[in-house]
Amino acid sequence: MSGHVAPARAPLPPVFVEALGSHFGDRLQTGEAVRLQHGSSEAHFEPMLPDLVVFARSTEEVQTVVRLCTEAGVPIVPFGAGTSIEGNALPVRGGVSLDLSQMDQVLEVRADDFDCTVQAGVRREQLNADLRATGLFFPIDPGANATIGGMASTRASGTNAVRYGTMKDAVLSLTIVTPDGKVVRTARRARKSAAGYDLTRLYVGSEGTLGIITEVTLRLHPVPEVISSAVCGFETLEGAVQTVVQAIQLGVPLARVEILDDMQMRAVNRWSKLDYPEVTTLFFEFHGSEGSVAEQVETVKMLSAHNGGGDFSWSNLPEERAKLWKARHEAYYAAVNLRTGAIGWATDVCVPISKLPECIAETKRDLAGSSIPATILGHVGDGNFHVVFSIDPNAPEEMQEVEALNARLVERALALDGTCTGEHGIGLGKQHWLLAELGEDAVDLMRTIKRALDPKDLFNPGKIFAL
Amino acid sequence: MSGHVAPARAPLPPVFVEALGSHFGDRLQTGEAVRLQHGSSEAHFEPMLPDLVVFARSTEEVQTVVRLCTEAGVPIVPFGAGTSIEGNALPVRGGVSLDLSQMDQVLEVRADDFDCTVQAGVRREQLNADLRATGLFFPIDPGANATIGGMASTRASGTNAVRYGTMKDAVLSLTIVTPDGKVVRTARRARKSAAGYDLTRLYVGSEGTLGIITEVTLRLHPVPEVISSAVCGFETLEGAVQTVVQAIQLGVPLARVEILDDMQMRAVNRWSKLDYPEVTTLFFEFHGSEGSVAEQVETVKMLSAHNGGGDFSWSNLPEERAKLWKARHEAYYAAVNLRTGAIGWATDVCVPISKLPECIAETKRDLAGSSIPATILGHVGDGNFHVVFSIDPNAPEEMQEVEALNARLVERALALDGTCTGEHGIGLGKQHWLLAELGEDAVDLMRTIKRALDPKDLFNPGKIFAL
Repeated sequence: MSGHVAPARAPLPPVFVEALGSHFGDRLQTGEAVRLQHGSSEAHFEPMLPDLVVFARSTEEVQTVVRLCTEAGVPIVPFGAGTSIEGNALPVRGGVSLDLSQMDQVLEVRADDFDCTVQAGVRREQLNADLRATGLFFPIDPGANATIGGMASTRASGTNAVRYGTMKDAVLSLTIVTPDGKVVRTARRARKSAAGYDLTRLYVGSEGTLGIITEVTLRLHPVPEVISSAVCGFETLEGAVQTVVQAIQLGVPLARVEILDDMQMRAVNRWSKLDYPEVTTLFFEFHGSEGSVAEQVETVKMLSAHNGGGDFSWSNLPEERAKLWKARHEAYYAAVNLRTGAIGWATDVCVPISKLPECIAETKRDLAGSSIPATILGHVGDGNFHVVFSIDPNAPEEMQEVEALNARLVERALALDGTCTGEHGIGLGKQHWLLAELGEDAVDLMRTIKRALDPKDLFNPGKIFAL
Repeated sequence: MSGHVAPARAPLPPVFVEALGSHFGDRLQTGEAVRLQHGSSEAHFEPMLPDLVVFARSTEEVQTVVRLCTEAGVPIVPFGAGTSIEGNALPVRGGVSLDLSQMDQVLEVRADDFDCTVQAGVRREQLNADLRATGLFFPIDPGANATIGGMASTRASGTNAVRYGTMKDAVLSLTIVTPDGKVVRTARRARKSAAGYDLTRLYVGSEGTLGIITEVTLRLHPVPEVISSAVCGFETLEGAVQTVVQAIQLGVPLARVEILDDMQMRAVNRWSKLDYPEVTTLFFEFHGSEGSVAEQVETVKMLSAHNGGGDFSWSNLPEERAKLWKARHEAYYAAVNLRTGAIGWATDVCVPISKLPECIAETKRDLAGSSIPATILGHVGDGNFHVVFSIDPNAPEEMQEVEALNARLVERALALDGTCTGEHGIGLGKQHWLLAELGEDAVDLMRTIKRALDPKDLFNPGKIFAL
């Protein structure tokens, strides 16, 4: 976390800082530590500091910040939990880091409608804790305990997406502050609507470049009557993926199905003190009634055996399930810590599911030629997987090597009609690949929208694409 | 269909018509009959004729039309099957009606990836016929045999949406011709992506106002092992809706659940020669394995009995199911034909599901005070319902009365935090209500996007909002 980038910039206009200060008092902070925290990410990017940090507590306060910033021409970058991994919240042109973590109120839960409205700074674990008494839950689980606003901004998804979708499916409506300082609610609470342009989906995944998300209305789901989990190691990658494809063909409503390669299993065993066989492994979760879950388990067990799966170890016990998913949630840290003192670089791609074995197999061959430890884990039902590199921070040549490995990975995914990012977003890290994926004309369309809505380029400038 | 609107307009520039003609030969048509067909809708709107109709067969041909139109400043309105009901495809400023019905090729079915790519003019029944051998199906069913491009443009949904989502969920990627004549593919084929702005969802529901959709890549689903259907009449509306809410709470994955009021049941009995009890009725469909469907049926049967349901008549027989859904599909015509020679006006709203009994009950009270026959039917799992009016074409005062009834319906839905249209789109008919629903600032955001992408206002002008 040393040697952060601090390009020469004109200081913020004193009258602007004064006006902000008069509104926010000690919730405007300029100390080095807080700026460094807001200018750093969990990933491999060098820190880039904002000029100041403001902690907002309401949509109205966000509106105040937006109006002052646009008036003064100061960049404004929303900040949630800081868990994004493509540098999505780094203030590359300084300005204001607008911290929304104090907007942490669950505003309303409407159990009868299977929905709720939260402030953008609510974290997903907090929300699920709050929901416990209702019999409902919020299924999107990207691993990190991210904020709901951040998850909406990056179109996050994670382990449950195969059954419950991504943030694009989970968000019913957003409250946003537009670049011209208006408060807009993008939709009503109806489960579906054909009323005009889908502003909700335009803002989901826009990474703060079109305005600030301040409140989110979310679809919720009933907690299943029975939840079972299972683990199964496979002789081959193809066998593991075929098991999932066939399960989907048979209509098995898999709730979670994660693939971990041999390296990732070794990392998980070490980090979480487990003793799974260190082979390509699927982690499953099944949701449903007792009868339905029993049938799902039976079907998948049969398919696994048919496709070279080993011992199919399943359980209805919450503690067994918790152990399994704790290991999965810690997989990133387990992977990074394959080397002591290493730093992590996580990347993700997503391909049509029939291309997944080819994409993973080629990637493994490529990784095998490198000296840098790297693991593969993914959401196999969606064709989405991650590579996590464990990089020696004192060996700058390793960063270059990972860059090359990542580039080949993304090119491989694109050649298979996949995407350069299934769930991390473009941020700073994948702008070149967005162009390769969709072409100049598509990105120009995005730029046209950006310029129309944010003509001064003040909202998280420098992200997704160069203007 | 008489007395169509023909406002005084300057004729199209001869050089433009000549250029179009040299490209399209006899696929450029100017006859009164074909123009009337493309200037009419199934709904209550007066015909508005285009200057000419062009039948395109490829994305390149659409690009040619777009370039000639933008050069000459001629409006361009895409036309699919003409089944939309808010006047969505009426050429209010004349110009070119761009008929895409000859773009009817299913370009590729990738069964291993559960997806396919079709030209925009493919109709949903044709697609499902083509898919039969694959074991997959395309679930979105708005009733009418609409084109896939039209369904994408209006964000259609229908009877299966409670389980399989709407067009926003079904579309993986679009090929569009932008107003500046570029061909853009909005996404790759990955099941999910976090790569930049969600252009796919921006175009789904944009009603041709931002460019022309020429190809659509769709998610497909495995045909369920077992499909059961059921019918059950209820003592009360509340009992019917409570049955559905409780089923969802219990995690029953309802594939279809339609509500038909007593008037609609009377219409269905007459039209389809059936003898169901003429009370509030639910039509169900259950998809899954044999065990799962049996369990679903058992659960819903129990809930129905508990909530004042009568005879719960269910069947696994395809012919029984076909009879039931044929009646449902004909419900619109059945409703219109409650009076001989009547014309139909169908409207739709969608509210949070807990508000559905209140919204329907109040609507029924309002309809009871009118002399115009009207039925209610809806997709109860989504909180979405339709009112179909049977209007005497020779009694102009009836049109006014329906306008007032429709206005009160929409206001009622908005007061309950619902939307003015769940699946028909805004078109011409609901522009005022879009403003009421989302507010001037939200609609201004849409206008800003429209102006940025279509600065000359040539693409389906006059729809969704006034510029």
